[in-house]
Amino acid sequence: MNAEHAELVQLQATYAAVVDAGDWDAWCELFTDDCRYRLQPRENHDRGLPLATLAFESKAMLQDRAYGIRETLFHDPYYQRHVVGPTLIRARDADRLHTETSYAVFRTKLSEPTTVFNVGRYLDEIVRTPAGLRFAVRLAIYDSELIPNSIIYPI
Amino acid sequence: MNAEHAELVQLQATYAAVVDAGDWDAWCELFTDDCRYRLQPRENHDRGLPLATLAFESKAMLQDRAYGIRETLFHDPYYQRHVVGPTLIRARDADRLHTETSYAVFRTKLSEPTTVFNVGRYLDEIVRTPAGLRFAVRLAIYDSELIPNSIIYPI
Amino acid sequence: MNAEHAELVQLQATYAAVVDAGDWDAWCELFTDDCRYRLQPRENHDRGLPLATLAFESKAMLQDRAYGIRETLFHDPYYQRHVVGPTLIRARDADRLHTETSYAVFRTKLSEPTTVFNVGRYLDEIVRTPAGLRFAVRLAIYDSELIPNSIIYPI
Repeated sequence: MNAEHAELVQLQATYAAVVDAGDWDAWCELFTDDCRYRLQPRENHDRGLPLATLAFESKAMLQDRAYGIRETLFHDPYYQRHVVGPTLIRARDADRLHTETSYAVFRTKLSEPTTVFNVGRYLDEIVRTPAGLRFAVRLAIYDSELIPNSIIYPI
Repeated sequence: MNAEHAELVQLQATYAAVVDAGDWDAWCELFTDDCRYRLQPRENHDRGLPLATLAFESKAMLQDRAYGIRETLFHDPYYQRHVVGPTLIRARDADRLHTETSYAVFRTKLSEPTTVFNVGRYLDEIVRTPAGLRFAVRLAIYDSELIPNSIIYPI
Repeated sequence: MNAEHAELVQLQATYAAVVDAGDWDAWCELFTDDCRYRLQPRENHDRGLPLATLAFESKAMLQDRAYGIRETLFHDPYYQRHVVGPTLIRARDADRLHTETSYAVFRTKLSEPTTVFNVGRYLDEIVRTPAGLRFAVRLAIYDSELIPNSIIYPI
């Protein structure tokens, strides 16, 4: 259980590091093949509404997005910085951990001050794979209703 | 000691989760019956001045506040999001841990951008009870002098 | 390894606590005698450029800075508040850990609202000494390009 705690910390810290470095291949590899990733406003989540800002239903869809970020989308680049809080273990099934982790993401655009971009909590289902702990489900449920410009990168 | 570390993390993470969810009954249950909770500006704390923004001297007073939030107060609702840092163990008495934890609380109001609401540090005294670790004392000492509007919810 | 995890957490939490308390002597003591501390914009770091906002090459230089902050510099005082994320262990050498830790630093000036001051990541090399874990190298690599006024205190 304590080894598990340290592993959970490494998973959460790795996620923040690879996203903030823009290492999208490494980002995809933190998920299982049949994963689910969703970025959704808190209100929609609480009411059970399906509308989401981003919704991917497999690692292949994440890889498409990674490709899109690198090759297709036209956008002003910006830096993201994730600072996440401690991870709460909500429940344990035979094969997975259900966890909750608060996050704040700060954005820095060229020659502008850093701003609070998106805050909320991750609701995760984490499974053990031969490669280590991975996200089977990651929901990023955000408080922020107003998103300054469009969201390009995953949160 | 490592099991203790994992338990401390769970306590801090649970506090953030229940406050940000507005689950005020669960918030009360994280304290001992004869607890002390105080929200106070850093300057007053450093000078030993008693003036505090919120001050509760027992779990019954917390429950009153929880009732007040739900039933009585008129206010614009807003979301809070706590992101707390790692917990520093400052000292150990026979029956309690003295800890310090940095925090940032972000606020989101309807149709407004998320802002930095209150930052500071928790000075806690944590005791073991049959129900698990609980706060005997939680002081939230904040740097922020200007509080945008009034504080409705505990920090 | 789990004891190590708890020790790493204490080191990171202690750093944040002493810097935010303005306890510059304690800050110096978290480093080895021949330490390196550097505060540098992300772009310069990524391109291998040497230009840094602060650069100290030994504990003696840190102590000079501590003296300067207390005795020499004329500046508007402000509060800092560090909230750091979980620590990622990137590599292990025979004698040191290489780690990465995201951070956000908030600043509060007299009678002004709290703002996001500086966000980025710490790239650390941490060694075991008779006094406990210490920083042999701490690089604070920040995203923020615009620094509001000058940086007085270390990050």
